Amino acid sequence: MVAVAGGLPIAVDAMGGDRAPAEVVAGAFRAVEELGIPVLLVGEPEYLAGLGNRPGVDFEAASEAVAMDEDPGKAVRQKRDSSLVRCAVAVREGRASAMVSAGNTGAAMASAVLRMGRLPGVLRPAIATPIPVPGSTPTVLIDAGANVDCSPAMLVQFAQMGSALAVERFGIEEPRVGLLSIGEEATKGNALVKEAHSLLAAGTAGPQVCFIGNVEGRDVMSDRVDVVVTDGYTGNVVLKTLEGGVKAVVGGVLGALTSTEEAKEAAKTAMPALMPLAEALDPDTTGGAVLLGVNGVCVISHGSSGAKAIVNAIRVAHHAVSEGLVARVEAVIGAQPAPGAAEHPKR
Amino acid sequence: MVAVAGGLPIAVDAMGGDRAPAEVVAGAFRAVEELGIPVLLVGEPEYLAGLGNRPGVDFEAASEAVAMDEDPGKAVRQKRDSSLVRCAVAVREGRASAMVSAGNTGAAMASAVLRMGRLPGVLRPAIATPIPVPGSTPTVLIDAGANVDCSPAMLVQFAQMGSALAVERFGIEEPRVGLLSIGEEATKGNALVKEAHSLLAAGTAGPQVCFIGNVEGRDVMSDRVDVVVTDGYTGNVVLKTLEGGVKAVVGGVLGALTSTEEAKEAAKTAMPALMPLAEALDPDTTGGAVLLGVNGVCVISHGSSGAKAIVNAIRVAHHAVSEGLVARVEAVIGAQPAPGAAEHPKR
Repeated sequence: MVAVAGGLPIAVDAMGGDRAPAEVVAGAFRAVEELGIPVLLVGEPEYLAGLGNRPGVDFEAASEAVAMDEDPGKAVRQKRDSSLVRCAVAVREGRASAMVSAGNTGAAMASAVLRMGRLPGVLRPAIATPIPVPGSTPTVLIDAGANVDCSPAMLVQFAQMGSALAVERFGIEEPRVGLLSIGEEATKGNALVKEAHSLLAAGTAGPQVCFIGNVEGRDVMSDRVDVVVTDGYTGNVVLKTLEGGVKAVVGGVLGALTSTEEAKEAAKTAMPALMPLAEALDPDTTGGAVLLGVNGVCVISHGSSGAKAIVNAIRVAHHAVSEGLVARVEAVIGAQPAPGAAEHPKR
Repeated sequence: MVAVAGGLPIAVDAMGGDRAPAEVVAGAFRAVEELGIPVLLVGEPEYLAGLGNRPGVDFEAASEAVAMDEDPGKAVRQKRDSSLVRCAVAVREGRASAMVSAGNTGAAMASAVLRMGRLPGVLRPAIATPIPVPGSTPTVLIDAGANVDCSPAMLVQFAQMGSALAVERFGIEEPRVGLLSIGEEATKGNALVKEAHSLLAAGTAGPQVCFIGNVEGRDVMSDRVDVVVTDGYTGNVVLKTLEGGVKAVVGGVLGALTSTEEAKEAAKTAMPALMPLAEALDPDTTGGAVLLGVNGVCVISHGSSGAKAIVNAIRVAHHAVSEGLVARVEAVIGAQPAPGAAEHPKR
């Protein structure tokens, strides 16, 4: 057990996720014990009371919980005393330094946007998800699903915010930012991509953003690019396509390695060599997505998060706070006001 | 060597692809020898003259070739005697039953559309690409890149055409057709997807299309769905994302299995079990994409096609001809005219 650091705790939504509250609480306890990061567990008072007192763990009661399939906007408006909303309020009121939730993604986003507020000049907050790249730092995919219909100006801001995250989280000095398209030439892509390309190529994102041009789907899981910019529809499709593809291939390999007695024996021998890859590809290791553009740190872990995923999400949130992620995003957006900031996407 | 079948040959673009003409010609010869499918090799006369006479192989001279990075529209308009254009003309004029090219995809499409023509009622031809699914039939992804900006009515036709292909190519009696989105609910997706969902849910694609609702990226490489409908921008991103993802994972596994002496030994033992998976994931096995909606069979193999990919592309083209793919597409489109057929996408 390491010493618990001083400072504000990370607010953890104890009721959010398919395996909440047990796995979430187990993860929060591990973050305190193994990383020395203080936490504020937010959830049903009866459940929390049963956990007993521990150093580094504070509790906050929330009488409601948002279900995984609830309508996000409605849930956040109506369940003002839900654990999710309470986490965001704790950050806004200065009782926590960041929030972590494995619950309803849309509701987590809405809570953060409504309770913490947008940073000045931000058109739309966006979800940045790290995609594991075997043998290299992860690629930041932004927007991974917050905004399904986007304007070119929004994509320029995603480039700015994603770049700030790659610097903070992965220590990349000058992250290479690529625009997701279907060919490297500036003329390739749909109408949105072509307009965004013009803006980015003209330097609209500012000198802090190193725009390397269009990238393709095959570059996402490679070391060719550090930040991949796209609209939230395409980004979410890419994220889930990779999830499915990796699962199919890994499942195929495991199936093959258990299909014969010889293969099973061989697999036992090869396992130590395969473990680092399995670890690198495990989304629980990466530590969750971040909502960028809001006035606070909000880390969203996937719905099926177990204790390990929660530990890593808390670690990521703590790092974002200590490395000043919000100030970095504010600075990069503030330095270069959005082109046609009034331009909003058609709905 | 099997007997060469009678009937029209398959026109093969001998000059198309990164490894043309040598690998393309080798593949065409193998198709004749191993499958008994006659071919019409179209390419530079000097090169073809040097190949000598063989049963089942005809030649047609084309004085030009379209480069892989040439502008498709311009190339097809200006290079009327290119091997690619000549292949399409051979199909139109009844000297070949289908065309196969591993060359410039855009130019292959443009040649087919301009020389073979669209089928009646088709708004826009689309590329259908089979995605390998370990342990199951491939999933048809349509549109995989022909039309970057699409209207909802176009997506309805992609559902119709993709369904016809799944029946013909994979013998699936009632293919399950899904619309690619970011959630299963009808309310999820961008504006295009939501409108297309309404049309498909209302049965606009006709009784032959079994619409199962929205599917997500993770379903593409699974056996949950047989045909995945999307616009050409998203489809191309999905295709290349999967390519990159599969490559990263397979590369990671191979890297791990050669990282230590123990792992290398184990890998040798496990290899026979792993081979069927490697074979299933190899795009050369699947046999190439098909351009649907034109008045002829046009199979597009990937640019780096070797002989094996060409053999399979010719096999796929031959199957499409003998199973009446074009008539099937014509029937499914004709049975259910496009909703708002005048509606064209904004450019």
